[in-house]
Amino acid sequence: MNILIIGGGGVIGQKLAQALAQRGTLRGDAIKKITLADINEPPLIDASFDIESITCDIADATSVQQAVRSDTNIIYLLAAIVSAHAEEDFEMGMNINLFGTYNVLERCRALGTKPVVVFTSSIAIYGGDIRDPLGDHSYPNPQTSYGTQKAACELFMNDYSRKGFVDGRAFRLPTISVRPGKPNRAASSFMSSILREPLNGQEAICPVDPDFRHYYLSPRKCIENLIKGAELDAADLGMNRVMQMPGRNLSIAQLIDAMTAVAGDGPAKLIRWESQPEIKRIVSGWRFDINADRAEALGLSADNSFEDNIRYYLEDYLSTA
Amino acid sequence: MNILIIGGGGVIGQKLAQALAQRGTLRGDAIKKITLADINEPPLIDASFDIESITCDIADATSVQQAVRSDTNIIYLLAAIVSAHAEEDFEMGMNINLFGTYNVLERCRALGTKPVVVFTSSIAIYGGDIRDPLGDHSYPNPQTSYGTQKAACELFMNDYSRKGFVDGRAFRLPTISVRPGKPNRAASSFMSSILREPLNGQEAICPVDPDFRHYYLSPRKCIENLIKGAELDAADLGMNRVMQMPGRNLSIAQLIDAMTAVAGDGPAKLIRWESQPEIKRIVSGWRFDINADRAEALGLSADNSFEDNIRYYLEDYLSTA
Repeated sequence: MNILIIGGGGVIGQKLAQALAQRGTLRGDAIKKITLADINEPPLIDASFDIESITCDIADATSVQQAVRSDTNIIYLLAAIVSAHAEEDFEMGMNINLFGTYNVLERCRALGTKPVVVFTSSIAIYGGDIRDPLGDHSYPNPQTSYGTQKAACELFMNDYSRKGFVDGRAFRLPTISVRPGKPNRAASSFMSSILREPLNGQEAICPVDPDFRHYYLSPRKCIENLIKGAELDAADLGMNRVMQMPGRNLSIAQLIDAMTAVAGDGPAKLIRWESQPEIKRIVSGWRFDINADRAEALGLSADNSFEDNIRYYLEDYLSTA
Repeated sequence: MNILIIGGGGVIGQKLAQALAQRGTLRGDAIKKITLADINEPPLIDASFDIESITCDIADATSVQQAVRSDTNIIYLLAAIVSAHAEEDFEMGMNINLFGTYNVLERCRALGTKPVVVFTSSIAIYGGDIRDPLGDHSYPNPQTSYGTQKAACELFMNDYSRKGFVDGRAFRLPTISVRPGKPNRAASSFMSSILREPLNGQEAICPVDPDFRHYYLSPRKCIENLIKGAELDAADLGMNRVMQMPGRNLSIAQLIDAMTAVAGDGPAKLIRWESQPEIKRIVSGWRFDINADRAEALGLSADNSFEDNIRYYLEDYLSTA
């Protein structure tokens, strides 16, 4: 069992590799090797099997050819540029988010080895004129180029699977919170930083109102679901390989209450409320009234409560900071 | 008003050009020129204004660059390879149906002239696990590569419009019947030939049962709708530039009854019923329980009855054969 994680240098890619290393098996077979691929060479992780770290630019078909090999059994395709970045740089968004995925699928088609491909789509595919509630079978009317690119890749995942070129499965990720590390260029970045920075004793700015609702999942639960996602039986997926990954629909106030419940009332005092119209404009088009019926029926799940998300952050990241 | 019809050599492209030539105006302005572009140089049509015929391979960005010019105000993007062809030759389907559309949109983006782009999508985007009835906001779960490519282009049309690169509108065409000319490689080809050939005194094979249902529109009504489609006000389209073009859901028996009502009981006797499992397999995945609410609200329409489709064929094509 050889696993390739494209986007292996990112928060989810690294944590996924660590979880797989701890497990040692996937789809019933012992893992022989994990290859971590990213635009910059990803940090290696500890494992009892072979770990390789390589650079790969998915926008470049030759680079993809070197990363996806004839003995690659499972591909996690996590690499993307984020929403605000793809909105600013349309061409880069198309090249990485759309053609990057296409390059990986085309490489699989050329190899003829039909690997399992686990693709991370996004709740950014929802939007526009489509009414709540949203879920697996909502018409994608995204209001960002990032969402458009993800929705097109969902279609590719289904067609390349139907044709037998890959055994694909695509999951629309909720917004991941509490995300460790530094703020990034995603417009959703504050949805982690208003918790992460205060938990680290630092100030953070909340650019939206306390009643702003969104759809969340912890990194730990996301990894669990991505591993289950790879293990799903193709026969159980039917004609649509795409589904919503379960999350929880919560207000900013509920996130902060959960932080206070777990960590006391100190951290919440470090939040500065400072309205940012541009961030508000982007995130007000996002959707939160989302169901994940298919994934739940297949055994994937959301966090039990946002208190768990806070605890996971403290356990997984703060202790090692 | 300069109009470019990509796919201008096809049945719809030619008939659209003729209708525009008779009209002389579009979107309230006098037409100065129509350019007919296709993989082979399209036949010229009669008009009181300038008509140019050029070759254009939409899979080739340089060729598209030559066809789409800075003074092009309206682009009809009709070119595609059909369902069965794209299913046999996956690469060609992607190159023409997906990247061809992308090349046209990218050319518009580079020009910065924001032309109106009228794109023909297809009811082939419906299918798979999605329940009836289907319509504007059904999740696309196509079961052909052709349908996948069209669905991805719908997403592009919306995003390029949202970004202000084009003023796009996309219409999912019903199956066109009675289609003039020769059978083509579309699996739906028989849905015209079982009427067209008998109306011309020739035998035809019907590969499915009389109760097989499908969703139809005449070429004449399709052209009317494509002209109305170009004239729609962008403000009336909202955040979704894509809609179902109205058609009628009818059985093969109803098609034949309409032919008999208009042309007597001779033609129906020329139909040979010969089950063809491969055609049946493909078309049984197609969908017919389809609504076109948005387009109807905007003034587009279906044929009044299939008798009209038969009459239009006799008037528009048989008389000139």
